[in-house]
Amino acid sequence: MERRSFLSRAGAGAGVGAALVAAPAITKAALPAVRWRCQSGYPRALDVLFGTDEGVVNRIREATGGRFHITLHPAGEIVPVAQAAEVVIAGTLEAATMTPFWYVGLNPIWAFGAAVPFGMNTRQHNAWWEDGGGEKMFNDWLRQFGVQITMSGHTGVQMGGWFRREIGSVADVNGLKIRVSGLAGHIWRAAGAVPQMIAAADIFPALERGTIEAAEWVGPHDDERLGFHRVARFYYYPGFAEGGVAQGWLVNTRAWDALPGEYRSIFTAAVHEGVNKMLARYDARNEIALRRLIAGGTQIREFPRPILESFWGHAQAMFAEIGRANPDFKRLHDHYASFQRRAVAWSRIQENPYDDMIAHMMRRRPAAGT
Amino acid sequence: MERRSFLSRAGAGAGVGAALVAAPAITKAALPAVRWRCQSGYPRALDVLFGTDEGVVNRIREATGGRFHITLHPAGEIVPVAQAAEVVIAGTLEAATMTPFWYVGLNPIWAFGAAVPFGMNTRQHNAWWEDGGGEKMFNDWLRQFGVQITMSGHTGVQMGGWFRREIGSVADVNGLKIRVSGLAGHIWRAAGAVPQMIAAADIFPALERGTIEAAEWVGPHDDERLGFHRVARFYYYPGFAEGGVAQGWLVNTRAWDALPGEYRSIFTAAVHEGVNKMLARYDARNEIALRRLIAGGTQIREFPRPILESFWGHAQAMFAEIGRANPDFKRLHDHYASFQRRAVAWSRIQENPYDDMIAHMMRRRPAAGT
Repeated sequence: MERRSFLSRAGAGAGVGAALVAAPAITKAALPAVRWRCQSGYPRALDVLFGTDEGVVNRIREATGGRFHITLHPAGEIVPVAQAAEVVIAGTLEAATMTPFWYVGLNPIWAFGAAVPFGMNTRQHNAWWEDGGGEKMFNDWLRQFGVQITMSGHTGVQMGGWFRREIGSVADVNGLKIRVSGLAGHIWRAAGAVPQMIAAADIFPALERGTIEAAEWVGPHDDERLGFHRVARFYYYPGFAEGGVAQGWLVNTRAWDALPGEYRSIFTAAVHEGVNKMLARYDARNEIALRRLIAGGTQIREFPRPILESFWGHAQAMFAEIGRANPDFKRLHDHYASFQRRAVAWSRIQENPYDDMIAHMMRRRPAAGT
Repeated sequence: MERRSFLSRAGAGAGVGAALVAAPAITKAALPAVRWRCQSGYPRALDVLFGTDEGVVNRIREATGGRFHITLHPAGEIVPVAQAAEVVIAGTLEAATMTPFWYVGLNPIWAFGAAVPFGMNTRQHNAWWEDGGGEKMFNDWLRQFGVQITMSGHTGVQMGGWFRREIGSVADVNGLKIRVSGLAGHIWRAAGAVPQMIAAADIFPALERGTIEAAEWVGPHDDERLGFHRVARFYYYPGFAEGGVAQGWLVNTRAWDALPGEYRSIFTAAVHEGVNKMLARYDARNEIALRRLIAGGTQIREFPRPILESFWGHAQAMFAEIGRANPDFKRLHDHYASFQRRAVAWSRIQENPYDDMIAHMMRRRPAAGT
């Protein structure tokens, strides 16, 4: 009956043109004009990270006919990146984009907003965050600071970093001066290295001068733009501490509460839209950059298994130690680790066998048309 | 200087509260009221597929203060699913959601909007679609029909299907009556099976009566809801023809062109937002459903490698054969296959070694706190 009445109406010429029902003239002054300022966590040169932030701002402007306007400043233009979380908490800035584990110095819990060492891959982290209770746990914890985070992107597994000399064994790590971020610093330190956190723009000069001997940043596309291949030859994988790194928009809750419902809804959709786009860009562009790097002389190396096994032990000891002093960390980590164990079991049936099967077939006989 | 002026303004008490600048009172009648009707490709029982469509409709309504309203009908309520693409093309319906490979009977090119056998996984397909030129190629081809598609979700690798008896060798496939969709039907037919396309709601009765002896649908979460485990015991993986199946909103271009720019922008963000959410839901819920199915007696089986090698051969022959008759298919497939080859090479460095390493570590010693 439903179908019949629909089709007869359609047959009477009431097709798609009629969907735009009689309505008053468009008036742009409908919702209030809102101006926000956001500091990106990234310099303009990083087209995927800064570009995704720009995409969000443009989408919000378009969707509101220009009435909700966010001015996006590159990293460091308002405050140093290391202070961005604090100025959003203080309410002097409405929003900042970031890789949340930059702020583990404030509290190691910030790592769960980005990645923990030997943690979930992108799909698994996303499932935990969006449907497994992760986002709620993290934002419930953030609420005491008057801020909230919306996940805005994922890089995929990052590379393990650039090294000026090969790392063949655990002994080679001793005394190594390396730029790392997040909780990975604890692991490198436990292994005898000298880790330090340096913002994106300062990594290249430190590596060039020899102030540091190794540095991890993101992956081929971004790392090539920052020029690391010109001052370090060996490029290691996998990024054991960065199996799927999330980015986020940190927003001051008072600023959020002052928004009309329509703007909150548009903001949320626009930021989530970026998650998918960021990952697509990385996946497409990393492969291109890696081929170029290899052609230019970069040597790709896989971390030897004994080093990773040793690091895994340091990571478990670190989680236990932080958890003893920080019950909120323990609560989140228990939840995260339990989800990860189940997610990995499912990946071993779903994604991994498919990928292995395709790689096997391509080795046997390339696909037609390639 | 920028920072100084920002901080002095902030210091003067012009913090986040002041971001809401003086503006006229909110008037809801600003943009025109628009009513669309959309038929979902899925029944209400499939909470992830139908639920993601509902999420999009709700987001659009919220973001426009209720002025852009899409009525969402479950699969089959307006027209049979098999006719949904045609009614959007005819303009009698503004939009329909779908797994585009359902329409390979119209033209095999529709497969590229969803999945092709032995094709890219979710991450790879998404990269090709969003950043590798795939979306543009597909929508350029669709333009002749006056419709366009926006990707709205991904299922991940699907399961290979439910079988009433074990499939141990290529000989066991002979004469097998199996429900499949997309181009996979050609492969099963080449292998001697009798494939047929049946809509979601009709699969269970056909399997129960023995009209078919095997059926693939999606994965543990959806399949459990449709009850297949009650009438078939063996559950195979991987879904060789469905390495990463995309869903989409097919929209009539005249209806699209009649929308104000703000609504187009909101629609696009809302649909893209769903991609990430659908995948998260599947990844979280499939694992839970699979454990329950196994506890209830379902037997998990991996397709024997010789069967997959034989099917891979049939797939390559099929691509070549379709391509000879259909130059547009060949053009898209060449582009797709070339992207896939490069994407797989990158996955073998990025995602796969990380996943393998984590699985290895978890076998050695479970993570702390689990």
